Amino acid sequence: MQKETSIDHALRATWQAVAKMYNEQASKHDSTMATAFVLLNIDYENGTPSTALGPQMGMEPTSLSRILKTMEENGAIYREKNPEDGRSVLIKLTDYGKEMRKISKESVLIFNEKIRAHISEEKINNFFEVTEKINNLISERLIFNTIERKAV
Amino acid sequence: MQKETSIDHALRATWQAVAKMYNEQASKHDSTMATAFVLLNIDYENGTPSTALGPQMGMEPTSLSRILKTMEENGAIYREKNPEDGRSVLIKLTDYGKEMRKISKESVLIFNEKIRAHISEEKINNFFEVTEKINNLISERLIFNTIERKAV
Repeated sequence: MQKETSIDHALRATWQAVAKMYNEQASKHDSTMATAFVLLNIDYENGTPSTALGPQMGMEPTSLSRILKTMEENGAIYREKNPEDGRSVLIKLTDYGKEMRKISKESVLIFNEKIRAHISEEKINNFFEVTEKINNLISERLIFNTIERKAV
Repeated sequence: MQKETSIDHALRATWQAVAKMYNEQASKHDSTMATAFVLLNIDYENGTPSTALGPQMGMEPTSLSRILKTMEENGAIYREKNPEDGRSVLIKLTDYGKEMRKISKESVLIFNEKIRAHISEEKINNFFEVTEKINNLISERLIFNTIERKAV
């Protein structure tokens, strides 16, 4: 692989490689990474309020509702009135959805275990420290909210 | 920020935060991160063959041609017959495109400099080592191409 020259490029290229790999893995089960990701965010036993899913996943409402519609058609989820809040709807897993969720979870576990088997715990912890720091610098708006240099 | 529990989640969340930040920054110039990314991949003086851009950027041809069409309409790029290969087309920057490219490059530099100002060189190098290792393990198909455990 080409040597990474910038932090954003390393993040983008690595996340895209992971996403491509997860999509290939999901396609073996006629699914997609996005579907697997939704499955993993639905509470196994109690379901999850539809309004909580988007924020929890960092996903746009329109993308999410498109995926939920497909998943409902495929019989992986169903909607149920929330017993604790009549105005909201719970997204719950069908038995098929529960099976698919287990497969998705297993793929995530395998990926993380394989990576950890090849990289020392110290380096992994350092990696988490760096990604957390980047997230904090961005969320605290410390990157671009100062006076910017003029474009050269 | 919530403590990251898995490597894929840390990558996804951090890349999404970077992408959101770059899109906000690009929108100040009525642009998008995708446009900025294309600008940065076009050779400043000589332009770049249209067929080389997609593979170079890891972008799907349909997404790329949609963006190129918009950029041509906005006057950031133009197409020219490749003098070295009559069948191919060069994507070249207009003067406006060159200005926009400088602004994009400056944003990338600022981001990388700000991150490096807050994280030691040793930790940054360790971060690159980990992302490169993940990329290699994926491209060598060492994650899922072994016998998989049954889903529990």
